Amino acid sequence: MGERITLAHGNGGKLMHELVDRLRIKFSNKILDEMSDAAELCVQKSKIAFSTDSYVVKPLFFPGGDIGKLAVFGTVNDISMKGARPLFISLSLIIEEGLGISLLDRIMTSVREASRRARVQVVTGDIKVVERASADKIFINTSGIGLIINTKRRIGSKAEKGDLIVINGKIAEHGMAVINAREKLGFISGIKSDCTNLNVQAERCIKASKRISVMRDLTRGGLATALCEIASFSNLGIELYEKNIPIKGNVRRMCDMLGFDPLYVANEGKFVCFVDKKDASKVKRGMGKSAAIIGEVVSSHKKEVYLKTVIDAGRILQMPVYDQLPRIC
Amino acid sequence: MGERITLAHGNGGKLMHELVDRLRIKFSNKILDEMSDAAELCVQKSKIAFSTDSYVVKPLFFPGGDIGKLAVFGTVNDISMKGARPLFISLSLIIEEGLGISLLDRIMTSVREASRRARVQVVTGDIKVVERASADKIFINTSGIGLIINTKRRIGSKAEKGDLIVINGKIAEHGMAVINAREKLGFISGIKSDCTNLNVQAERCIKASKRISVMRDLTRGGLATALCEIASFSNLGIELYEKNIPIKGNVRRMCDMLGFDPLYVANEGKFVCFVDKKDASKVKRGMGKSAAIIGEVVSSHKKEVYLKTVIDAGRILQMPVYDQLPRIC
Repeated sequence: MGERITLAHGNGGKLMHELVDRLRIKFSNKILDEMSDAAELCVQKSKIAFSTDSYVVKPLFFPGGDIGKLAVFGTVNDISMKGARPLFISLSLIIEEGLGISLLDRIMTSVREASRRARVQVVTGDIKVVERASADKIFINTSGIGLIINTKRRIGSKAEKGDLIVINGKIAEHGMAVINAREKLGFISGIKSDCTNLNVQAERCIKASKRISVMRDLTRGGLATALCEIASFSNLGIELYEKNIPIKGNVRRMCDMLGFDPLYVANEGKFVCFVDKKDASKVKRGMGKSAAIIGEVVSSHKKEVYLKTVIDAGRILQMPVYDQLPRIC
Repeated sequence: MGERITLAHGNGGKLMHELVDRLRIKFSNKILDEMSDAAELCVQKSKIAFSTDSYVVKPLFFPGGDIGKLAVFGTVNDISMKGARPLFISLSLIIEEGLGISLLDRIMTSVREASRRARVQVVTGDIKVVERASADKIFINTSGIGLIINTKRRIGSKAEKGDLIVINGKIAEHGMAVINAREKLGFISGIKSDCTNLNVQAERCIKASKRISVMRDLTRGGLATALCEIASFSNLGIELYEKNIPIKGNVRRMCDMLGFDPLYVANEGKFVCFVDKKDASKVKRGMGKSAAIIGEVVSSHKKEVYLKTVIDAGRILQMPVYDQLPRIC
């Protein structure tokens, strides 16, 4: 690891994992060591999911969403992925001096709409203001609490051999929408962020099957990075079928033109379920019309994700090192 | 309210209260409307306190503490003030590209030491990296969960007529330590921040008396602002006895020289208990050797804090409008 923090330390890839691991070791405890996006806690007899995220997306508004919506749904989704029903969120703002209050109002209205839609209550908050050039307009932290839905099987971070991998829809839209807006690339692509709440879909999956081992939303680092993490943590291999991965034509074309691999591009409304073969079609139904079975957990390729390409060749997907897109969420 | 955010919107004073109120109305619900520093929640049968704060203190290190220690104790204290035992915290970092990793390590070591001391576990976290000049070195958000200690009486935000006000020690040290370090004023004052965890003291108070109505830590805005808030929320008056308010000579002298009113200067290890007369001396004992009874809740001066000065004159303490000290926490 270098001596200074680089943007790549925040991209969800290899350097970030090294940094996260450095911190994890420092604070090591049974709950944190699970390394999922939400912690699973017991308070008296209640099983609770607890999650936090700071949002620094640039620009603040982009087709399909804005920082406020992202901040609510991002945390709601992390909680949902633990098999929990999100209930409460906190809202902490770091504002750069000079921000227009009407802009702040627009963002807060968006937070309100999103929290209503996801059925969570904003119950506590904080505001800090820093001098000009000490922050970039506004950063939002949300933390959230959810109640873990009582199921026979705990949804964790480890997949099992033979699990099928189901995705709920088309990939890479959030990243491409943000980059188009930020760089003013002017693609008249109609590409919108997929930013949405996943709690309803996730709960439907949990009700459809008691055989789900892992649920994971595909944010920073995209589908590939999430699968690399799961393969590594589970000490198993993943085979991924490229032809089954849903993606819109215009998103693929924009990725091709800009040189991005859509497998690594961020989503904000996509997740995967790892589920026993027997229940895969039930879970696929629970995940909606655009859902698809895209891969399988195998005992070969240990800790690796093996992509079977459309031309029936294969390649190993690596954990990314450098940043495709900073400040995507 | 002006059209743009100013530093005064973050100082704990009048403009900030207007801004907070603007947001509160947007998200209005029974829990949020209590307007305390931690929310009181029910998850199944467990009563939980939930709090969040982002820390943007400048400089990162100051005599008596640093941003890491502050981030843990600040949130621990907000939870403790609800009569809860802090259990778990989250840790979310916004880092400016280029931050030295050894500096980050020092701060994280401080977070670890503080969390051990306060007996809370860091159970979930997040890292974001932004480009140079998009943040000032590092901002830390901590959110926390605590279990509300089962007591006969709920500790809330409303004081009662006849309550005495007990403080646990000397005021204005944190603010003066930070300003001395930040501005390199070079006062060889030996003034250190009072930054510490209050959960042990707070729990002792709760055990000592069932008649505590409000507990409040005295952070941004200092003693005066906290009391103004409580008087206003309780729809009662507060009489404060200047001669009883503990303050070190060198802190008072530094305040005098720089033109700060110590009543408005931030603390990070001080709190007040509002308690029925009968139990005031018991609570005072629970708050330690430096504790003092500094005032009383009265039915006159409604919503106001009336300071009886050492020369037996009186004045009303106002909610501050402009900023004495930005980025104090």
